[in-house]
Amino acid sequence: LKQFIEELNELKERLLDMGAKVDWSVRRSVTAVLERNESLAGAVLADEPEINRMEMATDELASRLLALNQPVAKDLRFLIACIKIVKDLERMGDLAVNIAQRAISLSRKGNLVAPVDVDAIAQRVETMVAKSLEALANVDESLARGVLVSDDEVDELRSSAYRKLIALMEEEPQNSSQDLDFVFVVHSLERIADHATNIAEDVLHFVRGVDVRHHSKN
Amino acid sequence: LKQFIEELNELKERLLDMGAKVDWSVRRSVTAVLERNESLAGAVLADEPEINRMEMATDELASRLLALNQPVAKDLRFLIACIKIVKDLERMGDLAVNIAQRAISLSRKGNLVAPVDVDAIAQRVETMVAKSLEALANVDESLARGVLVSDDEVDELRSSAYRKLIALMEEEPQNSSQDLDFVFVVHSLERIADHATNIAEDVLHFVRGVDVRHHSKN
Repeated sequence: LKQFIEELNELKERLLDMGAKVDWSVRRSVTAVLERNESLAGAVLADEPEINRMEMATDELASRLLALNQPVAKDLRFLIACIKIVKDLERMGDLAVNIAQRAISLSRKGNLVAPVDVDAIAQRVETMVAKSLEALANVDESLARGVLVSDDEVDELRSSAYRKLIALMEEEPQNSSQDLDFVFVVHSLERIADHATNIAEDVLHFVRGVDVRHHSKN
Repeated sequence: LKQFIEELNELKERLLDMGAKVDWSVRRSVTAVLERNESLAGAVLADEPEINRMEMATDELASRLLALNQPVAKDLRFLIACIKIVKDLERMGDLAVNIAQRAISLSRKGNLVAPVDVDAIAQRVETMVAKSLEALANVDESLARGVLVSDDEVDELRSSAYRKLIALMEEEPQNSSQDLDFVFVVHSLERIADHATNIAEDVLHFVRGVDVRHHSKN
């Protein structure tokens, strides 16, 4: 039993390591957009294989712990949550790569001033990511609930950014291609926030055994 | 044991029912775009809560089977695959909702001729979805591998559609807002194809015990 508890802790550590790596990719991809920094964007792309390896190794460990022990109740819920969270983290890494690719595209189009405040959205999204990981690390319900609340705020920022970008496309069509890059940057950020929300929901589910998904939808 | 086998079959049936429902939402959302049919789009939106309920019930059943039996090897891999697949299906349902929302937006902007061949992309994507579900139903490796191959083709169609839409935005800025709707329709279709690919990968993983994720990336 003692060994099983240690292995569960190791699994959590691996998830948090992967989360830190993904968080770092998100941060650098956003900075690459803000600074039109192609080499920084390249560094994000170069990190993707490592994140994918972490995904597979963590997934493998969770499956092995399920197979070798016969966990029930909270331990079982924790393992199932880990399998879901690792998938969310991998997808967040993919979205950071998408942002980095837009940074490269933007840096080749010259030094247009950013038409929307990407940094303001990114800061909120990164706070959600950090809080969702901390909720996982400390099994902290109130942090997890805080993430769910922030999701709506990010959705509003995204919608407002889209409206502004569409207006700009109509007024200054020569910049449409850059504006579309920004549409995708904002879209990717909003999706990263959605995945942070999923992680928070999974934390709440394994702690309480209560399903809080689709909390505001149905 | 006999009961466990029956329950595993029931789980698969539920996943396939959910898959059929999602597939139907995708089809109708695309038709709503092609026909600028707002009421059809509304029907897709109205179906989302049912898909979410199917997600939670299927997820619950998979967790219960993990808890009450102590599956190993292939049965364990099957249950883990189901937990992942149900998440992919739910996300595909969300993407169908996104397409339906764009259909509503488009129908309110009048009857612009579609600037890109959404139907051609959608047909390929829907074939991938159908094949991934059939691969799951019949535990068919070669069908699953076929899905992985089609993914690259859809990526190319998407990139070509984006290039065309950007050119149109620059030439006819007055239609930028509609063009952006089409960008998101194409994006959502491509993401649905990615989730079909995930399902095919999960089928291969549980059948063979070999991880085929990131097959073409690393």
